[in-house]
This record gives sequence, C-alpha cells and structure tokens, in this order.
Amino acid sequence: MRMYDLIQRKKEGKSLSTEEIREMIRGYTKGVIPDYQMSAMLMAICFQGMDDRETYDLTMAMRDSGEILDLSGIYGLKADKHSTGGVGDKTTLVLAPILGALGLKVAKMSGRGLGFTGGTIDKLECFPGFSTAISMEQFIKNVNSIGLALAGQTANLAPGDKKLYALRDVTATVDQMSLIAGSIMSKKLAAGSDIIVLDVKTGSGAFMKTLKDSKKLAETMVDIGTRAGKRVSAIITDMDQPLGYAVGNSLEVIEAIEALSGGGPKDLMEVVYALGAEMLLLAEKAENLDIAEKMMVDCVESGRAKEKFAEFILAQGGEDSYVWDTEKFPKAAYEKEVCSKEKGFVTGIEAERVGNACMALGGGRETKEGSIDLSVGIVLKKKKSMAVEKGEVLAVVYGNDSEKIKRAEAQICSAYKIGGTKPAEEPMIKLKISPRI
Amino acid sequence: MRMYDLIQRKKEGKSLSTEEIREMIRGYTKGVIPDYQMSAMLMAICFQGMDDRETYDLTMAMRDSGEILDLSGIYGLKADKHSTGGVGDKTTLVLAPILGALGLKVAKMSGRGLGFTGGTIDKLECFPGFSTAISMEQFIKNVNSIGLALAGQTANLAPGDKKLYALRDVTATVDQMSLIAGSIMSKKLAAGSDIIVLDVKTGSGAFMKTLKDSKKLAETMVDIGTRAGKRVSAIITDMDQPLGYAVGNSLEVIEAIEALSGGGPKDLMEVVYALGAEMLLLAEKAENLDIAEKMMVDCVESGRAKEKFAEFILAQGGEDSYVWDTEKFPKAAYEKEVCSKEKGFVTGIEAERVGNACMALGGGRETKEGSIDLSVGIVLKKKKSMAVEKGEVLAVVYGNDSEKIKRAEAQICSAYKIGGTKPAEEPMIKLKISPRI
Repeated sequence: MRMYDLIQRKKEGKSLSTEEIREMIRGYTKGVIPDYQMSAMLMAICFQGMDDRETYDLTMAMRDSGEILDLSGIYGLKADKHSTGGVGDKTTLVLAPILGALGLKVAKMSGRGLGFTGGTIDKLECFPGFSTAISMEQFIKNVNSIGLALAGQTANLAPGDKKLYALRDVTATVDQMSLIAGSIMSKKLAAGSDIIVLDVKTGSGAFMKTLKDSKKLAETMVDIGTRAGKRVSAIITDMDQPLGYAVGNSLEVIEAIEALSGGGPKDLMEVVYALGAEMLLLAEKAENLDIAEKMMVDCVESGRAKEKFAEFILAQGGEDSYVWDTEKFPKAAYEKEVCSKEKGFVTGIEAERVGNACMALGGGRETKEGSIDLSVGIVLKKKKSMAVEKGEVLAVVYGNDSEKIKRAEAQICSAYKIGGTKPAEEPMIKLKISPRI
Repeated sequence: MRMYDLIQRKKEGKSLSTEEIREMIRGYTKGVIPDYQMSAMLMAICFQGMDDRETYDLTMAMRDSGEILDLSGIYGLKADKHSTGGVGDKTTLVLAPILGALGLKVAKMSGRGLGFTGGTIDKLECFPGFSTAISMEQFIKNVNSIGLALAGQTANLAPGDKKLYALRDVTATVDQMSLIAGSIMSKKLAAGSDIIVLDVKTGSGAFMKTLKDSKKLAETMVDIGTRAGKRVSAIITDMDQPLGYAVGNSLEVIEAIEALSGGGPKDLMEVVYALGAEMLLLAEKAENLDIAEKMMVDCVESGRAKEKFAEFILAQGGEDSYVWDTEKFPKAAYEKEVCSKEKGFVTGIEAERVGNACMALGGGRETKEGSIDLSVGIVLKKKKSMAVEKGEVLAVVYGNDSEKIKRAEAQICSAYKIGGTKPAEEPMIKLKISPRI
C-alpha cells in the first residue's frame, strides 16, 4: 500500500478498502505516514466523502489504534451517553444518577472542556475533593456497587483519533460528517459500553447548525455503533438557546442539583427524560417510553436520584454535603443584572454569545492547559418566547473582575433578540434516530 | 494572516488576495508554514481551482522566492523555449543553434532529466568535456559572442516552487492546471529571458492527454507570462508517438546533428520550425511566419546552424569533432531488431512505452541521484501511418545488457499497434496560443 495511491484514489472519488483504511490509520498512528500526506487525504475526504462502509472501517481502525476498555468486570449492561456539546449542557449530571438509581450501569469516561464552559469533569470538581483519577479496579467496583462512576480519559483510548483530530484542527478539515462521526464513535466504542445514546445538538449554538446536518451525523453514528454490535440510538435536541438557565460551572451544578430535587427547567428535563427513556428501553429496563419516563419522574420525586448523586460524589472523594446545601459552593464576588432596553418578547438567545460571555468571565478554557474559574457564569432570567418589560432583568452575570464582567455583559446584550411578536415554541426533541434494520 | 483561514476560504471556493498568496509562499519557503497545512491547501486548490489573478500571483510569489537572473549584460532580446516534455524530444538541440546563428540570444537554463530519457544537459554531456557548470560571467560572455549558452540550474531559482513541487509529488496534487502553469512559469520568469515560447505537448505520450487540457495549460502560461511583461506564446504539438526516430541520449544527439545537417525527420523539423518562427516573430527578426521559416531553412541548408552548434559545444569545453563525425559517439554493445508479427499499417506507437523501454535499458533516471547509460536507446524504423510487412523491422533496440534488452523489446512490441487500415495523418502543430489583448 502506498499512501500516495490512496490519496489519488480518494481524490478521484473512489472508495478505499477495509484493509487500506486500517493500514492508513495504523501507519499514521505509528508516524510512518507523515502529516502532510494525511492532511491531503483529509482534504480529499472533505470533497469526496466516505461511504458508510468506509466510515465504519475508519472508526474501527481508530478504535483499534489503542486500548479498548475491558468492562467485563461490571455486572449487567453498561450504558454511556454522548453529547455533541452545547451551552449550558448539564444533562449528564442529572441523567447519570437517575439511571444509576434505576439499576443501569453508567460507566462513563469523560473529558475536560475546551471553550464555552468546562466539561463534566470540571463541573464535578466544584465539589471539594472530587477526583476522576481513579484506578480501573476502583472504577469497576464503583459502577458495580453504586451504579455509576466517572473517570477521566487516562487510558490510551483511540490515540489514532487523537492524532488525526489534532491535524484536522489545523488544516480546516474538521467539518466533515464521516470524520466527525468516526472521531466520536471510535472513542465511545473503545470505552466499552454496550448501550450508547447520542445527544446530537442542532441549531445556532450547536456544531451542526441545520437539522439536515444533525440528522445526517446522528444517522452516521447510529449506523457505525450498530455495525459494531452496540445498542445505539440518537436524539436530536434543540440548541438554539442555552439549555436550562445556568451557564458556568458551579452555577450549572447547582441547577443540576435543583433538577435532581424536582425543580429542573422544563427544556433540560425534556432532554434528560428523552435520553434516559431511550437508554432504559435499550437496556430493556422499561417496556415503552411512557413507562420509562414515569420511572425516571418517580426516581427524582422520591429523592432517590439525588441520593444516588450524593453517593456518587462521596465515592469519588467529593464533599457530598454540598449536594444538600448548594449555598456552600463558592460564589463570584460580583453580580450584575443585564436589563432589557425594550418591551416585547424574547425571540432568540444566541447560545454561542452566552458561551462567549462565560469564556470572557474566565469560566471556560482557551487552551488545553488553561485554568478556569469555577464560580463565574450567567443565569438567564428570560428564555425564548417569554414576555419582557423595558428595564426588566434578562440575565445576571456572576464574575470576579469588573472588566471581564463588562465584556460579558456586552455579549449577553447582543445575545438577546427582542421582538414585538411572541415566537412559536420550538419542540426540544427534534427527531429520534434508531438503527436501520 | 492565519494559514488555517486561507485553507478554509479556498476550501469554500473563495479566492485568496495577492498579499495572502505572497505571504503564504514566503512563509512556506521559509518553513514557517508547515507541510501539512500546505498539502491541505494544495488539495483544496485541486478541487476549487485558482482564477487567473491568483495563478499569476502564485507564480510571481514563487519567482520572487529566490534569485532572479540578471541578464542585462546580454545585448539584445534574450529568448527561451520550454517544452512540457515528451519522448524523443531533442528540439532544443536543433532549435537553439539555428536561432543563435540567426542573431537571437538564446540564454538557456536547463535541468537534468527524470524518467524516460535524460534532459538536455544529459544529452549534451554525450560530448566528452562538455560542461554546463559555467560561471554567470562566462554564460553571459558566451551568449554575447556565440548567440547561445546553456547552464545547469545552479542558481537558487524559485526555491518556493522547488519545495512546493516536492510536496505535490508526494500528495497526489501534481495535476492541477494553475499549479502546473505556476511551477513552469515561475522558473522561466526567474531565468530572466524577454521572449518565452512554450512547446505544450498533447496526446498519449504527454503529461496532458487531451487537446482541451493542453490548450488550457498553454493559455494559462501565456497569460501569466504576458501579465509579467514578457513576449510569450505557445504552440501545442503532437505527442501521440515519439518525436523523430531516435529515443535515448546519444542516439538523439546523433539525430539532432543529422537534423542540423538538413536530414531531420519531418515531424521533428515541423516542431523546430514552428517554435523557431514564433521566436523570430516575437523578437522582430522576421516579418511573418513564412519569412521566418525560410530564414531557418536557409540557415540549416547553408551549414551555418551546424557550425553554430559546434562552436557552442566547443565554447563549453566539449569535443566538437563529434559534431562532424557522429561515429565517434560510444555505441551500445548489442543491437536487437524488433520485427512486426503481422502485415498492415502502424496505427499508433505508445510514446510512454517507448520511453519505458529506454528506461529499462538504463537510458533514463529512476531517481534524482541515479546515473544513466548515454549509449543505449531505441531507433524506430516505422512511424505512425507507415505500411509494414510481416517480419519487417519496426525498431532497433541498442543496449549493453541482454536481460534489459529483453525487457525493452517487450515494451517496444506492446507500444506498436498494427491495423488493417491506414490511419489519417495527424498534424504535428495542433494550435497556437497567442496572448489575449
């Protein structure tokens, strides 16, 4: 196999064989194939695409480029959830304890965040003492006894994907469907779960701006997972405005705890229940969606979900008293109300700008090595379709630096669109993608 | 300027500004822009192309990446000729002395060959003592006194193109029109001539297989040269079969000397006279093509062209007696006749296979560092449209190794197509491309 010939063939729109793709990823991971040939290949793929079989082969080759977690020590079906990312997305914090309490085995590998707000690990580190640096033995033990555990990606999962992603990131080849799907699924498949439910965000605040693209990505990932023998489905959810009201690490944790106490925002709970119902169905823990949702509502209302969350925090070294008293979380020094300059209805909230406001406050990471301020963020007071008076508070900015607060305020102002007509409410759940039989 | 943004823009089909292209080539030549970003850009250009302005800017940026020869010490108009390359192409050997004898200043930079046969330098080195490693002072002195000189590309001409070409060569991005035209023209423009005539080959034995592509390449190059203030035109000539009868270094030199003695093959002379007439016109040495051609024919018939050739060989240290006695050139040890297996007409001779036969004999370079056997080659006895009897000699293979001769013989056999109907004769000169006013 000569890499040159593979580039030429892909450039001409022809497909690559399974063995060629495996060889290519193996060679690239080992450093035998140089970056400059791989980047030409990536650009050719951007123009010519990959068919379903090639996409699957690419994913499996990247999965096999490193360790594959052995979760056989966990009793029962292991479930994992992945979100393509959005502003204010604290879904995992709410969903994982509910599912754990309902008997599912949630064995989650998670990463730190880059941009917008932190990732799930950063958010959980708002609990003093909480650590994701646990051994594989401890991880498996916790999942078996508690029902959930979360580990940082310390294992060498899909290094081929990691190297390829870094190259895509500097060669303008990130936005290709097969490459995106393969990147996400290679890591998920290496992480060893039996059930994978994908939350594909769509809208102005999502990586995929249109429903068409989101649908295509969801279908591609479900197809890959199914071919790989996993139980998998995807839900396409709205990300035209931030999810819930809170954006910023500790603020989001507090909102998640409120949700586990039965007081979660409607849009957040819709997403949580839709994803959870899907997982319960795939795990054969519920017969239909209605039963699944009722199980989850009961679990929250009875307080079991919140107890499970506290149990999980404690098991990973965290101060669980914070779950019962959210006043304990450190607060930002200043808060600033952002008020509406006109009367009308909120016709839109640009999620990306709210995310940028949080970044401006120091609540997100600019580079992989950057540190983040867990206390800062924004709490929205008005969401889309709500009526607003002139001078009424739209959102509150929490910050530790007056200059940064000013910048955040400007972002929030420009994020809100106020109009004279109340916009129709958009459904949170746009589509569900199940495996093609 | 961020290279990432330029890649993204080109990927989207947008054009790059003059300053962006200059920065890009400057940065790449200096090593500030890495290969992996440039190869992604090259692939994006393969799909999205470059407009005429961008192509010109790219060419000028590559020209300016190194030295630009100062030929102001040469009196009168300096003329250069470039061929896109083909099998049996000894045009320069015949044309340069004719033009030199007619008062043009032929100041030629030339390279060694890669593949097929050697380049012009390799061919001239068949004369013992001949050297292209002459100083710039000597080069200019020779052009002034004799009318022609040929130097190896020792100067640091268009290093940006050199680096870019090496990258294209390993990333399957060679065959893009703007990149090809820019590569050729950047070197020609750096070599400092006032007049540039381009011989664009077309057909099965050429890099450009179709007349449409050849025309596009010719137009692009003429456009670049004209924008750069040069007198330039292009002739598209046939390369469906080898040019002339001889293929192989010393065999081609002998054929060139025969041509300078008035006995040149018809197809070769057509190309020589067409290119030469164009150059004489551009140099205002002749009023029209008929006069120009008559001047050249007279020059050959009077023996002046051949004398000029001998003078040129001698001036660069070569043994000029070989011009007057071609028996002196070293001969290959063996010759093998390749005979026709059937009666009919030659309907085609695949030039590439004849080139490969010469390679197989050791007459071409596999790698840049490779050495070549100057004595080996092929002399065709039958060309396209000629009648042939069963058992009649099609070609003679000259070699020094019986195994290599066998491989060459097989290539020659498969190169010849014999059919029952005499094919129509194709014109050698397909098109002439003049600057658009």
